[in-house]
Amino acid sequence: MKGIIVFRMGHRKRRDPRLSTHVALAARAFGAEKMLFSGDKDPELIRSVDRVTSNWGGAFRVQYVKSWKPFVTNWKMSGKSVQLTMYGINVYDVVEEIRSCDRDLLVIVGGQKVPREIYELVDWNVSITSQPHSEVSALAVFLHILLSGDEFKKKFPDARIGIVPCLRGKKVIRSNSSLLSS
Amino acid sequence: MKGIIVFRMGHRKRRDPRLSTHVALAARAFGAEKMLFSGDKDPELIRSVDRVTSNWGGAFRVQYVKSWKPFVTNWKMSGKSVQLTMYGINVYDVVEEIRSCDRDLLVIVGGQKVPREIYELVDWNVSITSQPHSEVSALAVFLHILLSGDEFKKKFPDARIGIVPCLRGKKVIRSNSSLLSS
Repeated sequence: MKGIIVFRMGHRKRRDPRLSTHVALAARAFGAEKMLFSGDKDPELIRSVDRVTSNWGGAFRVQYVKSWKPFVTNWKMSGKSVQLTMYGINVYDVVEEIRSCDRDLLVIVGGQKVPREIYELVDWNVSITSQPHSEVSALAVFLHILLSGDEFKKKFPDARIGIVPCLRGKKVIRSNSSLLSS
Repeated sequence: MKGIIVFRMGHRKRRDPRLSTHVALAARAFGAEKMLFSGDKDPELIRSVDRVTSNWGGAFRVQYVKSWKPFVTNWKMSGKSVQLTMYGINVYDVVEEIRSCDRDLLVIVGGQKVPREIYELVDWNVSITSQPHSEVSALAVFLHILLSGDEFKKKFPDARIGIVPCLRGKKVIRSNSSLLSS
C-alpha cells in the first residue's frame, strides 16, 4: 500500500459542515494524505482544514470532486479502493490483503445515502463493527487498524504549534520555540 | 474497570446536533453503557439514539445532566474519570492503569470550549494523538484501545435488525428471521 486518500461522498453543506470537517481532520491525524469530497461545493470546508494544516503542520489538503462516478471509475486504473460501511466484511478479515497491495488506497466514507453502485465499484466493502455509528469513528478506527497505530508516531513538518503531552493542563509550543504552559 | 459511561460536555443544540448523536452512537457501538450530556437540553438527541437502540438492540441510553460540575465532583466518590483531550498524555502510557481500576469509568469528551477545572477534576487527561481531530474519533479509538477491540465481538440483545457482513451489497436480518438481501 502506498498513499492513503480519503473520499467523503455526498457532502451536504447545510447538514454536514462540522461532520465533514471532522472526517477531514481524522483523515489528517490518522495518516491520510488528502481528503476529496463530492456533493455540495464548500470552499469554507477547504479553508477551515487548510487553517488547521497551516498551524499544525504537514501537507494535508482537501479538494472537491464534481462527479463521484467518473472519479471512482478512473481511480480503479491506478489504485485500490475500500468503502467503509456497516454492511461490509469485518476489517480484520481483509486488513492484511489491503496492506499488501502496492498501490494507492482510496478510502470511501459516505453519509446516510450512498449510491448502490459504489458497493460494486470498490475492491472491498469493509465494516468497523456491523452497528450504526459514524463515518468519523469508522474512518479513524479503520486507519488505526490499517496502519497499526502509527498515528501516534506521525510527524507533521513545519508546524507552527505543537503540544507537549501532560497529565494536567495544556502545554503548547509555538514555532518561535517558546513553551507556553497554562 | 467496571462499566463505561461517556459524558459529552457542553452540547450545543444548534451547532452539534449530529455530532452529539455520532458521539452517542460511537459510545454505544464501542462498548459504553450510556451517554450523559450537559449544555443545551435536547429531547431530540435522546429520541434519535433511543430509536437506534430500539432497532439495533442493547440497553444503551442517553440522559441529560443539568450541571456538569456537581455531577463530575460527585462522580469522584464512586468512580474514576478520564478526559479525552489532545493536550493529555499518550493513551498507551496509562491504558493499563485505567483498565486495572475496579470502579466505573467516566469518559469525558468536550466540544471546543472545555472549562479549565475539568483538567484538575479528572483522574487522567488522555490524548489520542496530540493533533486536532474530533471527539467522535477520539472516543472510538480510545474505547477500541481500552477494550482491546472487543467492539467487534459485542452482542446487542433484543435487536430488531442485524447485519450479515458481506463483501458486496447489504444483507439485513429482521427479528422475524427473514433474511433480506439487496
